Amino acid sequence: MPRLDDVTRGRILHGGDWNPEQWPEETWQEDVRLMREAGVNSVTLGVFSWSRIEPRPGERDFGWLDRLMDLAHDHGIGVVLATPTASPPPWMGRLHPDTLPADADGHTELWGGRQHFSHSSATYRRLAAAITEDLAARYAGHPALTLWHINNEYCTYDHGDEAAARFRTWLRHRHGTLDALNTAWGTAFWSQTYGDWAEVLPPRRTHYLKNPAQLLDFRRFTSDMLLECFTAERDIVRRHTPHVPVTTNVMPLWSGLDAWRWAEEQDVVSVDLYPDPDDPFGAQHGALVQDMTRSQARGPWMLMEQAAGAVNWRPVNRPKPRGLNRLWSLQAVARGADAVCSFQWRQSRQGAEKFHSGMLGHAGPDGRAHQEVRRIGADLARIAPHVAGRTVTAEAAVLHDWHAWWASDQEGGPSRAAGHAEILTAWHRALWRAHVTTDVAHPEHDLTGYRMAVVPRLHLLTDRAADNLVAYVRGGGTLVCGFGTGVVDEDDRVRPGGMDERLRALFGIRTLHEWWPLEPGATVETAGGLRGTLWSEELEPDGTADETLAYRGGELDGLPAVLRKGRAWYVSTLPEPDDLRNLLGRVAAGAGVRPVLDGLPDEVEAVRRGGLLFLLHHGRDEVAVDVPGTHRDLLTGATVTDRVTLGRYGVAVLAP
Amino acid sequence: MPRLDDVTRGRILHGGDWNPEQWPEETWQEDVRLMREAGVNSVTLGVFSWSRIEPRPGERDFGWLDRLMDLAHDHGIGVVLATPTASPPPWMGRLHPDTLPADADGHTELWGGRQHFSHSSATYRRLAAAITEDLAARYAGHPALTLWHINNEYCTYDHGDEAAARFRTWLRHRHGTLDALNTAWGTAFWSQTYGDWAEVLPPRRTHYLKNPAQLLDFRRFTSDMLLECFTAERDIVRRHTPHVPVTTNVMPLWSGLDAWRWAEEQDVVSVDLYPDPDDPFGAQHGALVQDMTRSQARGPWMLMEQAAGAVNWRPVNRPKPRGLNRLWSLQAVARGADAVCSFQWRQSRQGAEKFHSGMLGHAGPDGRAHQEVRRIGADLARIAPHVAGRTVTAEAAVLHDWHAWWASDQEGGPSRAAGHAEILTAWHRALWRAHVTTDVAHPEHDLTGYRMAVVPRLHLLTDRAADNLVAYVRGGGTLVCGFGTGVVDEDDRVRPGGMDERLRALFGIRTLHEWWPLEPGATVETAGGLRGTLWSEELEPDGTADETLAYRGGELDGLPAVLRKGRAWYVSTLPEPDDLRNLLGRVAAGAGVRPVLDGLPDEVEAVRRGGLLFLLHHGRDEVAVDVPGTHRDLLTGATVTDRVTLGRYGVAVLAP
Amino acid sequence: MPRLDDVTRGRILHGGDWNPEQWPEETWQEDVRLMREAGVNSVTLGVFSWSRIEPRPGERDFGWLDRLMDLAHDHGIGVVLATPTASPPPWMGRLHPDTLPADADGHTELWGGRQHFSHSSATYRRLAAAITEDLAARYAGHPALTLWHINNEYCTYDHGDEAAARFRTWLRHRHGTLDALNTAWGTAFWSQTYGDWAEVLPPRRTHYLKNPAQLLDFRRFTSDMLLECFTAERDIVRRHTPHVPVTTNVMPLWSGLDAWRWAEEQDVVSVDLYPDPDDPFGAQHGALVQDMTRSQARGPWMLMEQAAGAVNWRPVNRPKPRGLNRLWSLQAVARGADAVCSFQWRQSRQGAEKFHSGMLGHAGPDGRAHQEVRRIGADLARIAPHVAGRTVTAEAAVLHDWHAWWASDQEGGPSRAAGHAEILTAWHRALWRAHVTTDVAHPEHDLTGYRMAVVPRLHLLTDRAADNLVAYVRGGGTLVCGFGTGVVDEDDRVRPGGMDERLRALFGIRTLHEWWPLEPGATVETAGGLRGTLWSEELEPDGTADETLAYRGGELDGLPAVLRKGRAWYVSTLPEPDDLRNLLGRVAAGAGVRPVLDGLPDEVEAVRRGGLLFLLHHGRDEVAVDVPGTHRDLLTGATVTDRVTLGRYGVAVLAP
Repeated sequence: MPRLDDVTRGRILHGGDWNPEQWPEETWQEDVRLMREAGVNSVTLGVFSWSRIEPRPGERDFGWLDRLMDLAHDHGIGVVLATPTASPPPWMGRLHPDTLPADADGHTELWGGRQHFSHSSATYRRLAAAITEDLAARYAGHPALTLWHINNEYCTYDHGDEAAARFRTWLRHRHGTLDALNTAWGTAFWSQTYGDWAEVLPPRRTHYLKNPAQLLDFRRFTSDMLLECFTAERDIVRRHTPHVPVTTNVMPLWSGLDAWRWAEEQDVVSVDLYPDPDDPFGAQHGALVQDMTRSQARGPWMLMEQAAGAVNWRPVNRPKPRGLNRLWSLQAVARGADAVCSFQWRQSRQGAEKFHSGMLGHAGPDGRAHQEVRRIGADLARIAPHVAGRTVTAEAAVLHDWHAWWASDQEGGPSRAAGHAEILTAWHRALWRAHVTTDVAHPEHDLTGYRMAVVPRLHLLTDRAADNLVAYVRGGGTLVCGFGTGVVDEDDRVRPGGMDERLRALFGIRTLHEWWPLEPGATVETAGGLRGTLWSEELEPDGTADETLAYRGGELDGLPAVLRKGRAWYVSTLPEPDDLRNLLGRVAAGAGVRPVLDGLPDEVEAVRRGGLLFLLHHGRDEVAVDVPGTHRDLLTGATVTDRVTLGRYGVAVLAP
Repeated sequence: MPRLDDVTRGRILHGGDWNPEQWPEETWQEDVRLMREAGVNSVTLGVFSWSRIEPRPGERDFGWLDRLMDLAHDHGIGVVLATPTASPPPWMGRLHPDTLPADADGHTELWGGRQHFSHSSATYRRLAAAITEDLAARYAGHPALTLWHINNEYCTYDHGDEAAARFRTWLRHRHGTLDALNTAWGTAFWSQTYGDWAEVLPPRRTHYLKNPAQLLDFRRFTSDMLLECFTAERDIVRRHTPHVPVTTNVMPLWSGLDAWRWAEEQDVVSVDLYPDPDDPFGAQHGALVQDMTRSQARGPWMLMEQAAGAVNWRPVNRPKPRGLNRLWSLQAVARGADAVCSFQWRQSRQGAEKFHSGMLGHAGPDGRAHQEVRRIGADLARIAPHVAGRTVTAEAAVLHDWHAWWASDQEGGPSRAAGHAEILTAWHRALWRAHVTTDVAHPEHDLTGYRMAVVPRLHLLTDRAADNLVAYVRGGGTLVCGFGTGVVDEDDRVRPGGMDERLRALFGIRTLHEWWPLEPGATVETAGGLRGTLWSEELEPDGTADETLAYRGGELDGLPAVLRKGRAWYVSTLPEPDDLRNLLGRVAAGAGVRPVLDGLPDEVEAVRRGGLLFLLHHGRDEVAVDVPGTHRDLLTGATVTDRVTLGRYGVAVLAP
Repeated sequence: MPRLDDVTRGRILHGGDWNPEQWPEETWQEDVRLMREAGVNSVTLGVFSWSRIEPRPGERDFGWLDRLMDLAHDHGIGVVLATPTASPPPWMGRLHPDTLPADADGHTELWGGRQHFSHSSATYRRLAAAITEDLAARYAGHPALTLWHINNEYCTYDHGDEAAARFRTWLRHRHGTLDALNTAWGTAFWSQTYGDWAEVLPPRRTHYLKNPAQLLDFRRFTSDMLLECFTAERDIVRRHTPHVPVTTNVMPLWSGLDAWRWAEEQDVVSVDLYPDPDDPFGAQHGALVQDMTRSQARGPWMLMEQAAGAVNWRPVNRPKPRGLNRLWSLQAVARGADAVCSFQWRQSRQGAEKFHSGMLGHAGPDGRAHQEVRRIGADLARIAPHVAGRTVTAEAAVLHDWHAWWASDQEGGPSRAAGHAEILTAWHRALWRAHVTTDVAHPEHDLTGYRMAVVPRLHLLTDRAADNLVAYVRGGGTLVCGFGTGVVDEDDRVRPGGMDERLRALFGIRTLHEWWPLEPGATVETAGGLRGTLWSEELEPDGTADETLAYRGGELDGLPAVLRKGRAWYVSTLPEPDDLRNLLGRVAAGAGVRPVLDGLPDEVEAVRRGGLLFLLHHGRDEVAVDVPGTHRDLLTGATVTDRVTLGRYGVAVLAP
């Protein structure tokens, strides 16, 4: 299978989406000239170009794209070529209303925006395949082509009738019989038993709460249908160019896709990443997504989209302060990226994203942001020979699963305040602040390579995953497990006792009497001074735990908040940030997991990739970092001994 | 007419909804064994069982229910048998889309949840009657059958076309002619005059405010249509079993049903009650609902549903702390309940309510909550012989009417912040905190039995009600009336002067110049130090009042805030909680209404039922209560003299 | 062309909407008697009377209106006669569903409220024309008729199919060809290129952001379609009565109509004005609307609607305190109104507005509010001979354009917090607080008559407007320009550099690097102590500015916050209220713009109209105002020398 290494060949890709169809062709020449000056070596063409290529049904206009491909190639810029299927032309919706998706209330999503296609529409799939076929045939042999990019940010739903038909097929495949579906969905409750497949629908408007297993299966179905759209196009381009890898850009903290499963189907795993520049933990948000993406890629990965400055979809869109784009770009490389690309090269003057920054913004080549892009280009070129293709090794893994997310974040649970993504983020943040490098793993993965595994929350846990966790501890691993884990099985059925009995045995819990979710802002205390938020639990230990930390005060006074039995830890609340960092730091130390570097200042992130040590300073005031020994800073060429000084948003890439 | 006494026969019913169709039959045996151990003597079967009984149109499968009825009977457990009509099977919606309700925007509510039936659908009514007929015929002679439970929590709306047709019929019946409807609805305003009945619709989407009289009539219509559904099924089961009483479970602080009218049609009045365990005034919320239900029942009533622990529909669902379920269960008995039942016996493992607690929760028989259920069972059995069938007597009545609620809580009034239910709750709370036992009465009821009547707010007041209040005072009663009362007549027409002239004369008010609603959080002061919230009024007295308390400061400085003319009090604001308690305490004392017991601690509620004195401690720290004389505590058997000590959530039931 | 002067003839109109069809005819007699006592000389008849005039399709019932017209005339009250077309009768929606508008999701707005008509419906237009024709024919010669009032508060949208067809026609007219439309809308982005006119739709539901140029054109189209409805009816009545002026009531701080363009089509400009009595800057809100309306009228204008007390559409509706209705009525006169009218004469007892105050409220003739109405009537009569027809002269203009508003307040821009209307209000408020009288002007207007022009924010600026501003400064004018101005051109296309290059040159800005919008509540500081809110900008000066005020601290430390180049000022943030007042006060002084009077207390507003000086006291405590010289107060007849004392909400109208 072709891989990202085949594209990078010792370089780090630098570039972004190029949508030159928005400008007259004279602009194109300026574009490639400025790209070269900025060290751009890769552009993504063709995203959202369907109406340009196929202005009327069945026509094809590739001339403009031919010229762009040639132009890129002439300037030594590789092309990530996108299938244009994320935004069908207006004629499609008008002539084929069956291609349009509907929401749960029956409202149709029309053209005039983007992504107005139903994943389930046979017509859409047919027309998408046809244009993909022609695109692949035309450019299969083009020397600029380096990577296929299928569609864009798959993220749509459809609750309409054709989706209903496909949902039934998908359910037949999953459950076999209607009886099995009734059993899996627990339809005996509330008189929901289906007597005919034709009665089974996607979740639509109901008077009160919907069936939660139906909702869960619909999330799975949606991810799978979008994946079918992806693989159908992938197979077409692969047939034409078996040697060219294929990817699509995923937004992993948007919950709609099971990215573990998607990663298996891609040659290159790529991601879109837009932390809020104003978020004091924006860098950690980035680190989490990067760790997740690297773990899915099992090696180097591609940062397909970031923003050189502001985005345009938040209520207030702050630009990136001077140096932040460079810092976060190099952070991605530190955490395994071999491609640092942005949406988009030249900022639009029209359309819905004209206030989304570009690498070449409205301010033009002299703009402060563009000047920083040039610097990034130079930096990437400088370090690429030492970095590209290298791996990041982690001794700890954070466990995450989209199915658990889907199951836990429904209405009708103990607490709407305890969101999966927020809890995942909190746990990862604690490890990040403790300077522990982490992978992200699926709970059914082989974990034996890690000294420590942490489960922020896995509300849904399959039998296989539960067995895997038990075996991991039995095999010598250290496991730290957060509250509300192992509550339901694969079909969203509550485990007897409200918590998987294997887990209860693992942690030394006899009975889980009650969940005590906390109101936002409320806290619980423990005897050890640790304060918990969001959740607590009324647990009765079975007497086998080696260590417990008890709640203090309130209804749970004296009951265990944290239990340790051997190497298995259970944490029945979400400790406040400092407490969680300290707890995990202590457990990590016990498990032999060490911080990347001792004595790191709080604001400095350190990551090792290959033999290199990346130091990333997220603050604005100069700091000194003790780094024993002598190193060469690849960015400056300087030799540093024992101590590195980093200025505002400073980065050092140290080679031994 | 059969009554609740015919079911209880000296016992207090203890049990709840039993939905064993969710489990294999071996579980059923465990269920009944555990029920007996927990003192369960009554279960509700058949709620939401339509698709089980009628899996395909016209089929009937009663075998499973036969076995359950027999099983219950074999274990001495009576059955409250529900018609399954609250949740039609999926096939019904598919084959008969006319059975599905539509909202004001035309969105249809589909199956996949529950209660997806149109009260107006002839097809639904026909099919519901058919299954009710068969159910009644089959179990009419079954010895386990103790009570009929029709449908479940009637609470739906329909704005669709069949509902429109029925609305027209209902309106013809109410108003007679189209001219009369035009007059009653004031359609001369905004060019809304109807020239043809076919133009008259339920409230649907409009550009701006809808006609308020139409909205009011639609609320009345909805309550009446649901009542027609109820009485249709009631009449069927009554024909089969004239000796078995009939009920349905109402949620009285949900505004949709005119529960006064519904109570007249039921043999037994039952209620669902879910105070928030985290609400410091949860107990008072319960007391209000209980007083209301008892007043509707005019005697013992049935607590059909409560939760043994947490519910699952709040944003954060807190469980009941140890002892609270017992405390609140005994509170219901104190306030007249002869049945303390819960939703549901065994907590679901699947479906939308699997995180709603059960009497037998996920934690199983050893769960803390289940152990408390057993204790409640024992307590109820102990006190039942002394309590069942006995009455609670109140010297004060709180007046409430759903039509007034519907009229006042519309858009387009002086204030959206002044909600009927919140004001009703505030006034009842003040009396509850003053340890005054209250009934709830309709403003047209004969009030002569009460020493004091309080009107929190009755925005709409019929002529008959206004005359009734005046006659009540003239007959020696003491009336305390809150702001915004008597504003509109039965057709939502503003009374001349903005306030019924009979009331103005009663309180000594010449002119109501303006309503001065207050922003949430704002207050007004009076010369007496009382602080008002939510509302104030610019009143000009007519000089006949015997006592006035003036506003101090602000625009209303010097104008009357409170007026007393003889035994009639008018309060033109909502006093802050302590002020309202003190004011009502003072008025009550003047009216000869005494607290249940003198010197009660704040956290102890006291109620007399029959000859018994219930003491209910809502706090967690031990308190002592002075109870002069010697009593026997029926719960412990102990004899107490002059003083009773109550621990956390403690209860004493004292017999002389 | 007939003008307002033809109606007023030396008087100030006083009166309001009269909807006597809500009451029996005996009430009408009382109405006119009380009107005369209150000095009412003008009533508006016929608004929302369609179903009364045409109870069944094609019928006409004018008898009642004949009697009302005669009655008014007999009592010397002129009639503003409204076409009834704002609220079609129920029969129209039922028989002609094509007359009903649809929202972007396809939901139809039905009768039962008001304004349920599609501006694009040919059937609606035909039926509206027919009834207007008959109305005009019938009353053309009636002596009571003084003014035509077309429809009411035009404010509707339609996204349905007939609107789509008209939208296409409108777009063809605007853009000529489909290619030109594609260019103007930037449809190359996101594959939105239209290949056939039939594909072009109003904005409807999309998956993500809609095309912003389409949204902008749809706003323009909507304003134009409503204007077509207006002019069609205007032309009919004008044909019958060329001598009678025509108006319609506009709500100018509701964004839907381009009121500049509407003003050109009306003989009399009239406005509805409802400041919140509880808003401490309610008077300034009024002043802004009044300045805007006067500027559109280019002379005296008509206050068509205000409220004598509370409205009923806010969440909490506060009445007007004693004196406020008079104060605000006289404020309108001070700022150019020759008509002070209210909605409505007699408060409704039924219908959706029965809690909206009337000149004759529920409290009746003795009501405090009605007594104040009488006083206003007397005051207006007293000052009218000195005021009517006179002009207000301003040396400063505030620039405003609806197209800029529509373009800036879309989703997908730098900040949703920076609303056009809020910024406009903030700037006008600063000038109002500095006692500077302002006109409001369109950016393409001839500004040479003003010493100073201020641009709060004009996100969209046409070439002509940009040239106009530059020429204005070149011609000696002083320009103060707020942030985010000149960002896009007429088609919502971002100007190269993110800011019009003419403006950059005008202010001395080389490069606009980034917009730095601020979170709500956040501030930035400058070296001069000025604090900015909402927005800031990263600007690089070109060295030609004469004066700059730099940001201090934060990312923008040292960069210019305010630049002055000659007489052109640029302010890249929204200064806090006091800072903006001081800044504008200083600039005004430099430009030779003086406050109306020196040494005015903060709470006293002063305006000169004709030769009169109005002093308006917005506070409740007595103040003294120094007014050099001797004047006669027209309200009291008293002579005042050098000093005027004003009590609570006091007003003086001083003649030399």
